[in-house]
Amino acid sequence: MLPQAALQDLERALGPRAVLARAQDLTLYEYDGSIEKSKPECVVFPRTTSEVVAAVKTARAYDLPLVGRGAGTGLSGGVIPRAGGLMIAFSRMNKILEIDYENECAVVQPGVVNLDITRAVQGNGYYYAPDPSSQKACTIGGNVAENAGGPHTLIYGVTTNHVLGIEAVLPDGSVIRVGGKEFDRPGYDLVGLLTGSEGTMALVTQVIVRLMRSPEAVKTLLAIYERPEDAAATVGDLTARAVTPAAVEMLDGVMLRMVEEATHAGYPLDAGAVLLIELEGLRETVEEQLALVNEVCLANRAREVRAAQSEEERALLWKGRKNAFGAVGRVSPTYYVQDGVVPRTRIADTLQHIYKVSEKYDLQISNIFHAGDGNMHPIILFDPDDPEQTARTKKAGEEILKYCVQAGGAITGEHGVGMEKNELMPLLFTDDSLETMERLMRIFNPDGRLNPGKLLPTGKGCMEIRLPPAHYRSTEW
Amino acid sequence: MLPQAALQDLERALGPRAVLARAQDLTLYEYDGSIEKSKPECVVFPRTTSEVVAAVKTARAYDLPLVGRGAGTGLSGGVIPRAGGLMIAFSRMNKILEIDYENECAVVQPGVVNLDITRAVQGNGYYYAPDPSSQKACTIGGNVAENAGGPHTLIYGVTTNHVLGIEAVLPDGSVIRVGGKEFDRPGYDLVGLLTGSEGTMALVTQVIVRLMRSPEAVKTLLAIYERPEDAAATVGDLTARAVTPAAVEMLDGVMLRMVEEATHAGYPLDAGAVLLIELEGLRETVEEQLALVNEVCLANRAREVRAAQSEEERALLWKGRKNAFGAVGRVSPTYYVQDGVVPRTRIADTLQHIYKVSEKYDLQISNIFHAGDGNMHPIILFDPDDPEQTARTKKAGEEILKYCVQAGGAITGEHGVGMEKNELMPLLFTDDSLETMERLMRIFNPDGRLNPGKLLPTGKGCMEIRLPPAHYRSTEW
Repeated sequence: MLPQAALQDLERALGPRAVLARAQDLTLYEYDGSIEKSKPECVVFPRTTSEVVAAVKTARAYDLPLVGRGAGTGLSGGVIPRAGGLMIAFSRMNKILEIDYENECAVVQPGVVNLDITRAVQGNGYYYAPDPSSQKACTIGGNVAENAGGPHTLIYGVTTNHVLGIEAVLPDGSVIRVGGKEFDRPGYDLVGLLTGSEGTMALVTQVIVRLMRSPEAVKTLLAIYERPEDAAATVGDLTARAVTPAAVEMLDGVMLRMVEEATHAGYPLDAGAVLLIELEGLRETVEEQLALVNEVCLANRAREVRAAQSEEERALLWKGRKNAFGAVGRVSPTYYVQDGVVPRTRIADTLQHIYKVSEKYDLQISNIFHAGDGNMHPIILFDPDDPEQTARTKKAGEEILKYCVQAGGAITGEHGVGMEKNELMPLLFTDDSLETMERLMRIFNPDGRLNPGKLLPTGKGCMEIRLPPAHYRSTEW
Repeated sequence: MLPQAALQDLERALGPRAVLARAQDLTLYEYDGSIEKSKPECVVFPRTTSEVVAAVKTARAYDLPLVGRGAGTGLSGGVIPRAGGLMIAFSRMNKILEIDYENECAVVQPGVVNLDITRAVQGNGYYYAPDPSSQKACTIGGNVAENAGGPHTLIYGVTTNHVLGIEAVLPDGSVIRVGGKEFDRPGYDLVGLLTGSEGTMALVTQVIVRLMRSPEAVKTLLAIYERPEDAAATVGDLTARAVTPAAVEMLDGVMLRMVEEATHAGYPLDAGAVLLIELEGLRETVEEQLALVNEVCLANRAREVRAAQSEEERALLWKGRKNAFGAVGRVSPTYYVQDGVVPRTRIADTLQHIYKVSEKYDLQISNIFHAGDGNMHPIILFDPDDPEQTARTKKAGEEILKYCVQAGGAITGEHGVGMEKNELMPLLFTDDSLETMERLMRIFNPDGRLNPGKLLPTGKGCMEIRLPPAHYRSTEW
């Protein structure tokens, strides 16, 4: 229970309209895009860095657990307040503070929606590159915390490649500013360390992001295959032919039928897999690559390659991909998205393994993923009211992730570790390495009050937490 | 003095031919490419990670300061053993362990020379991108420690953008492995944190580096100007026209005359400045950019733009740039290279400020730098036997760096902080931020025995060290 005095302090510092503490209000803040749930005891909505500092100091004074929240679109439970306590929601810190075209960067508050940066600068021929599928809703603060990626990660890298500077509040209430508008920074790379730290080190209150020039030309292709392994082989072959598309997305047969029925994007209902390939750059480059990609797809037994002939056709092709999770939701109320990564050369056999797991556990698994990155997203459909099936689902998911690790990959590509995969970290790291990570975390977050029970295995990191089994529910991103 | 027992332990573990401890042998290891000097008490040459562990454990047992060394080409004193003790030289750990074309990476030992990676893979159309001017001599371990850049940093980023994984020995003798062949890694970004930590956190014993495809076409231009400010304006204008050359190097009049006299690269003796501009990519892209760059240079009052018509002409243009420091050495036995960074838009006024400092302190200052990055390299010529002039030189250098910081830049772009600029760190960081950095360092290096007196201000970081004034000497990179 939140002490009444803490509530009064918060209301005094931030104003009563910036504080929620009634049970029915808190229900909205108990989940994110993952399968977990847990209620905060209080949510505050600061407008400035000093209001964040005030809230953090109150949490410290009353020894409350503390967690930051952007739009709640995360997929690994990163913002779930699993120990209760105070939640700092950044939705009112949503200003673009400065756009500096000459130095190709912008200074923004953490609650700015990802796509709104692009909207603000596209008239001048610029955009913000990282494009998680949730980009219409997710916020920069959350993107920094999770080091978010997206389809175009393939060519432009993840969030950490686009963040130049960070202002953040530490759990003791102190404010640090690291990085800046220039690229090369002396000293230890604190910007890189904070990016992807999943809200366990600091609360980001300001970000300097890179702006990039919009490409002169964009072309989008749909390559259609009878067999998923041919689509997978195409991905490796493109690399071998020195083509780096802006994006290479793959949907397998199970997935593309669900998507087509929901979105009418024009995906073929009888195919084994499709690749959605996007090329960007100068006009001539794109034309040259287009011919080469076409050739590589056909050489790998694509039965057809379609190029979008207009912006409308292009939007339609992407509509299928971007609304895939909604499409799954029509078929099954609940599903479990995995986020394993494998070296590009191991996509085909990992896919085969996923199909075997599907058979072994008698579960429907559809696949949609960033193939160019080797970032698989198998989606396991299940019924949360069937405890036996739920248990099978979790076992199947774990078996897939273990295969990814054995293939030289990892348990997460872009969704983060959060509270979903933190107990799996020992698959990837030795005790020494996890110990080093915990010590790093404690530099910023010495008593583990900030976002406890995330990223590191519990019992190792943060407070010792034993929660009841997760309540699974349908997700959307 | 090194205890005799420590020497015996080292000889037993590594073999007598892997240990140097005689004064005349140690003289070769007392300097790097900077202006500082200090002798180690012993140098060892391990061949394997376990030999590194043995040496580190010996240093720990006898409480010896410890420093790693690559090729000694560093420019900020990063490998100078300012507290004496044990030096671990990586020159025998110079094997390329694996080349993995399918995943576009290589696994190398730290003593591998930067250019040797490119030499090993260029037959297959690949190369390693970061290209410090010392790339024929400098080693990957040192590149990782200093987060080395080079002319092509402009388009491809610095070392941290090309390192996927690191194996390292900590000062307590434990071995950590972080990162891997895949791009997206869960957990805190330890690879990013270790890269650029200037040898103060860990001794790197293995590195996974990215390999990149060689560009289809390369074009090199020399643009000649009457006035340095027009050359500087060209750089900003290229950005505004959305051209990102692979490299934009600038030499001012003072510098290009010295260079031309030494190298006969064909630089004009009467110009105020030249830009060396390189374009890379697909053939059509490069041709299109070439026309645009030509136009932008002429619009900014370039009096002439020459394009290299052959590989020989291209090599000749670069010869001037790459041998610039040798050329300076012909004119003055000693000089002091600064490494300030400013936002691209501030190059022109920073250059004006440097010329004012040159007049004010009556010192000859020539300029050669990575203009595209805003990474200035003013070179102050001076006579080390004239103490009054030496004092003026240091004051002039500090005044230039302070100007860079006020312009929104930083005190180093790619040479590192080392022991040359560590006392200037408070110009850039608050006490809180420096404190946080020191605590990070102590996670890995708790008693500060590893590379003491570097990066952080002494008295703050590492052991408390008060050294006699540096002995200045001529440098080469």
